[in-house]
Amino acid sequence: MIKMLNLITLEHGSGGKKMQSLIHELFLRHFDNEQLNSQEDQARIPFDTLIAQGDRLAFTTDSFVIDPIFFPGGNIGKLAVCGTVNDLAVGGAIPKYLSVGFILEEGLPIQDLEQIVIAMAQTAKEAGVTIVTGDTKVVAKGACDKIFINTSGIGVIPKPLQIGARQIKAGDKIIVNGTLGDHAVAILQARNELALSGSIKSDCAPLNLLTQPLLAQPGVHAMRDATRGGVAAVCNEIADMTKLGMLIKETALPLHPEVTAVSEILGLDPLLMANEGKAVIFVESAEADALLAHLRTLPYSDNAAIIGEVVDSVEGVFIESLYGARKKLLMPTGEQLPRIC
Amino acid sequence: MIKMLNLITLEHGSGGKKMQSLIHELFLRHFDNEQLNSQEDQARIPFDTLIAQGDRLAFTTDSFVIDPIFFPGGNIGKLAVCGTVNDLAVGGAIPKYLSVGFILEEGLPIQDLEQIVIAMAQTAKEAGVTIVTGDTKVVAKGACDKIFINTSGIGVIPKPLQIGARQIKAGDKIIVNGTLGDHAVAILQARNELALSGSIKSDCAPLNLLTQPLLAQPGVHAMRDATRGGVAAVCNEIADMTKLGMLIKETALPLHPEVTAVSEILGLDPLLMANEGKAVIFVESAEADALLAHLRTLPYSDNAAIIGEVVDSVEGVFIESLYGARKKLLMPTGEQLPRIC
Repeated sequence: MIKMLNLITLEHGSGGKKMQSLIHELFLRHFDNEQLNSQEDQARIPFDTLIAQGDRLAFTTDSFVIDPIFFPGGNIGKLAVCGTVNDLAVGGAIPKYLSVGFILEEGLPIQDLEQIVIAMAQTAKEAGVTIVTGDTKVVAKGACDKIFINTSGIGVIPKPLQIGARQIKAGDKIIVNGTLGDHAVAILQARNELALSGSIKSDCAPLNLLTQPLLAQPGVHAMRDATRGGVAAVCNEIADMTKLGMLIKETALPLHPEVTAVSEILGLDPLLMANEGKAVIFVESAEADALLAHLRTLPYSDNAAIIGEVVDSVEGVFIESLYGARKKLLMPTGEQLPRIC
Repeated sequence: MIKMLNLITLEHGSGGKKMQSLIHELFLRHFDNEQLNSQEDQARIPFDTLIAQGDRLAFTTDSFVIDPIFFPGGNIGKLAVCGTVNDLAVGGAIPKYLSVGFILEEGLPIQDLEQIVIAMAQTAKEAGVTIVTGDTKVVAKGACDKIFINTSGIGVIPKPLQIGARQIKAGDKIIVNGTLGDHAVAILQARNELALSGSIKSDCAPLNLLTQPLLAQPGVHAMRDATRGGVAAVCNEIADMTKLGMLIKETALPLHPEVTAVSEILGLDPLLMANEGKAVIFVESAEADALLAHLRTLPYSDNAAIIGEVVDSVEGVFIESLYGARKKLLMPTGEQLPRIC
């Protein structure tokens, strides 16, 4: 147990003694590593260790403002580690180092912060990344909502790897590693905005555990994680960039029964729902079955499925029903669920 | 002029069409560079270009929650670029790439955001860094205060360079590159919390313009930027890490007359005030005069001065008055000014 006042105060963000005690008793204690412990203004990483794994650096950032901060399947801390790890992973990078920037609201219970920090440390360990540098700001009550977290990440892209939207071509199959919309529905339920109670959990997970072994096989052309805007946003963005079309098979979509039920009741579309542990993987047609079989042996991929294909016969993204009827899946315009991540 | 709704709405953070338009018409337009324009989830940087400049990567992060977001001498955008550039610079790194994470409050005027983005682009250009990856979240009105920005930065540390708190030894001189407390007083005045009106501006500036040329000379042992907690926090942190003492000469402190006046009226201590363009530089005694002379020829350093020295005769940090009286300068405990950066 840490011995501190029970609530975050403005002094915890002051650059003074109280911030030092927060850093030592909470962050350094749980994130414990040489880089962070040195308490320089920056982490210093020899290039040697990075170059051994690849020839390019990957760099990404994400802020997390999810409401509520604790939800079935995770909390904002786990999400903040997974989100940035996943941005690196779907680009083909091996995630290595994370920074973390906390914005805390005065009055946040320190026990809550500790629970979040512990989840970050555990998830970082699972993903094989190290939290090497950080920053903490505290704002007065009412100036933010409990806690916001930014994580930025550095990864290494292995030398032979060339993946990205430009590698996608007509004929490619579209694979997802499991059920869609779980995160969004878990958050909806956690907000108690539904009369429904349910057992569904956020799919929040570090995707590098599956992308790295998958990339050791031939045939992956591009990957994206289907967060805000869901699979619809990913497919439309890529269709727009590549000028290729996509056909998604409605019956092929892996969906948890609760997600189907909630979607029907509320008129939401699981293809537009945010996920936090789902990669959309564009693969060479001839390799698709082998890749899917391999994927199913990997973590967080039990319900992996081929959900559609890339075509040059249409423009845009279409959903095909069991009976062959097509309807266009548009880029989401509005916000189904604010503060979903 | 950009053609968009005048205010930020939740849709601008949705991952959908409106976010795409914000990204294109505002961020890509002003930050314009190949990395960002590729719109992958991550920036990809060949190691070749980095290794040419050094052997270690520097990585740092900072969130900015300053209130007000516009102030004499800058705005939250300029501050967000300087802050992270400076963390890299004082560690001896050549700042190279930045990420930016925006958290926007619903209702923020897009014109304000554009002004902030323009300041970021200009400051990045001045500092020689590229904003290569980003993220935008929008929260409902009341869930944050206008705009928070996180920047994370990557730099390269040149091969022969070994600076850091561990290099500091008794006898080292302590140099600052100019007047102390300008940022804090400018913010106080911008908040209209003082009956005083003044002309002082924040010192917000990219310190690599002086640290890099300075490091080309022999004698620099360590640098820190004196932000939250001011020179007092820097000196106490280092005294604590090195177990050395420090004597600061009160009469040697470069102070703008307005800062002196405000300090006297409000009972604040300029040594505890936040700066956003001030490095505290610990140098070899024999090189101090030459380094000071060189520093004064560099940007943002007209009023550079030797303010004290490192000693092993006392523990902790002491201020010495004109007549030799010493008082202990403690690590700040409280918060002089919340949301100063």
